[in-house]
Amino acid sequence: MTITGISKLESVMAKQNSLVCVGLDSDRDKLPRSVLSHTHPQFAFNKAIIDATHEYVCAYKPNIAFYEARGEEGIHELKMTMDYLRGNFPDIFTICDAKRADIGNTNKGYVEFVFDHLGFDAITLHPYLGREALLPFLNRKDKVSIILCKTSNPGSDEFQNMSLEGVPLYLHVAQQVATNWNTNGNCMLVVGATYPEELQKVRKLVGDMHLLVPGIGAQGGDLEKIMQVGHNSNNTGMVINSSREILFSSSGDDFAQAASHKAKQLHERINMFRT
Amino acid sequence: MTITGISKLESVMAKQNSLVCVGLDSDRDKLPRSVLSHTHPQFAFNKAIIDATHEYVCAYKPNIAFYEARGEEGIHELKMTMDYLRGNFPDIFTICDAKRADIGNTNKGYVEFVFDHLGFDAITLHPYLGREALLPFLNRKDKVSIILCKTSNPGSDEFQNMSLEGVPLYLHVAQQVATNWNTNGNCMLVVGATYPEELQKVRKLVGDMHLLVPGIGAQGGDLEKIMQVGHNSNNTGMVINSSREILFSSSGDDFAQAASHKAKQLHERINMFRT
Repeated sequence: MTITGISKLESVMAKQNSLVCVGLDSDRDKLPRSVLSHTHPQFAFNKAIIDATHEYVCAYKPNIAFYEARGEEGIHELKMTMDYLRGNFPDIFTICDAKRADIGNTNKGYVEFVFDHLGFDAITLHPYLGREALLPFLNRKDKVSIILCKTSNPGSDEFQNMSLEGVPLYLHVAQQVATNWNTNGNCMLVVGATYPEELQKVRKLVGDMHLLVPGIGAQGGDLEKIMQVGHNSNNTGMVINSSREILFSSSGDDFAQAASHKAKQLHERINMFRT
Repeated sequence: MTITGISKLESVMAKQNSLVCVGLDSDRDKLPRSVLSHTHPQFAFNKAIIDATHEYVCAYKPNIAFYEARGEEGIHELKMTMDYLRGNFPDIFTICDAKRADIGNTNKGYVEFVFDHLGFDAITLHPYLGREALLPFLNRKDKVSIILCKTSNPGSDEFQNMSLEGVPLYLHVAQQVATNWNTNGNCMLVVGATYPEELQKVRKLVGDMHLLVPGIGAQGGDLEKIMQVGHNSNNTGMVINSSREILFSSSGDDFAQAASHKAKQLHERINMFRT
């Protein structure tokens, strides 16, 4: 039987001994010159990055905005990337960073697109419309819904830290997801590495739930600090994403080699803090 | 000079004497049999609907989920629809119901895709990440950012009606958008027709700002009630969306004729309440 959902994530974390996620944010404008001559430059770049980094990761997370920016062609290259991943590294967990959420009926379109057409294991979702609206995602027991809780951007306080009935909104989201949304055991939360105090509070509230933690590297999150406060009782519980620092470590012909080096380094640093 | 942004919306509202928006939620599974034999069935359907309804509307609003459900081909047919609209009815306001929102840098991908590649006048956005994250949208003075405030779905209370010092979150969103986000005069808010009391409160708070109001018809919103409480001091201020009731009024060969009849009826009913 094929392993799916959170079990797939936990299985690859154990097998690769890794919490590293590489964000395939393959911005066309930042691609090294050497791949630009390819018919499908985003795919050519992703393939080289995947080949160079797969042994150090538990997950890949393309942000779909960088593909949609190029219209149908970008979507096609994202599909090629997913076909390559699923064909060659079927154990690795795949997250579509799409930050979607519409009303019930309409979400079926996104479910079909992201889970069935593209074949991702997980998708990131906005909480604003509530659980009822997101049931088409949550009801997919074989797929993982990753709900935005405390995002890594500098202005995330505006609503997320507003204190509603004495508790900040992001903790209400964490609480609701942990207690009411996660009945199929297929939910995760996004908590930015740039907010270690909030990460600690979320961890205390949600038990062993897995968190997607973006924002180390270019955005300034402190790896040591988040490793202290973010892990769960199994010494896992975090999918730690790095995008630009790995992808664009070199803009020369050695970009894949440089990415491999950076991914290996991150893998080692994270595991050093886990022991 | 080409008219853009809110001015374009106000201009077409006046010219067509209409607040009607037709939601081009052209779900492939619901299309009439007579268009399914076309090479591009979603586009063929949309073209027929647009030809049959354009004289009654101020805006069209495709929900992108129904196109993404079909992958690259669906995105291609959405592009064809936009090319047809812009070529033949360039005065009509176009809204991409995409409900996007990512962190700053990444939103540029969506800005390019929705505003530049597809050519929409406006996009719907989640407020959860705050103003700072949405600047790539808000800074486009020629385009309109439509922020989710109180959504039409039955479960929208879960977070939107949580209160801070007696004020519910959706009103905090309305307040922030009206006072801090709208410096370029290019913001609107989404308020569902299914919540007339909330609509009244938002209207009182935001002055003459235009609102996108979905949820009449199939979702049960009461048109008379929302017309009483939702208009602004110019007796406009609402873009009132109907999707399924117009699109799928008939599943036979007369679907376009039936849609025309429904759109005309809605146009007349709305204007009856405006006098």
